[in-house]
Amino acid sequence: MHYKPGLHILSEFNSANQLLLAKSADFRNHVDLLIATYNLHKVGEVYHEFEGGGFTAVVCLTESHLSIHTWPEYKLATFDVFLSNYQTENDEKARAIYKGILAFYDGIEIQKNEIKR
Amino acid sequence: MHYKPGLHILSEFNSANQLLLAKSADFRNHVDLLIATYNLHKVGEVYHEFEGGGFTAVVCLTESHLSIHTWPEYKLATFDVFLSNYQTENDEKARAIYKGILAFYDGIEIQKNEIKR
Repeated sequence: MHYKPGLHILSEFNSANQLLLAKSADFRNHVDLLIATYNLHKVGEVYHEFEGGGFTAVVCLTESHLSIHTWPEYKLATFDVFLSNYQTENDEKARAIYKGILAFYDGIEIQKNEIKR
Repeated sequence: MHYKPGLHILSEFNSANQLLLAKSADFRNHVDLLIATYNLHKVGEVYHEFEGGGFTAVVCLTESHLSIHTWPEYKLATFDVFLSNYQTENDEKARAIYKGILAFYDGIEIQKNEIKR
């Protein structure tokens, strides 16, 4: 079996919903739902809340990782999803998860990069 | 104060040192040394070892995150460092950390992307 690169999507988006950007709890529920929906496998996670609002989170998957960093004062977040294709082709799952996160925040995409790696 | 985007470096590299790719302990020591050297602030981490070798890790920083995923059977790793510039300009730190990791693995770069975000 040869190595098949996976897809890493990196996004910056604006959201008018500063409450959702300020605290991680709702993101956490939503991303866990997406992970279950797309049958991915979480092996650990870190959530860190900043004083004054905003949070940073990384979710480690057997398929690679997700991350988010928020700046509610700028109505801004960066989101990453990287899914490797070790056992199955996951590119469409990565796109679907990004779409799910953007919709959750009613986000306006500022920049998106898709990198095959 | 306006928002100043940070730098995200994404790399794929080969390493002949399959032992270093197989287990996380030495990476962990080295990355913690780099984090201390460059005065970054770790707020959490996840390390996951795969059966048969290889590991995946994400290290969450107040400045954003680092991640690595290894495939020793392909002598391959993907490494990310994303440092935001919220309080200080960290682009050169991000490049130095990537250089430090590549040197640690005696790695041969396959692909590198630098994304301002």
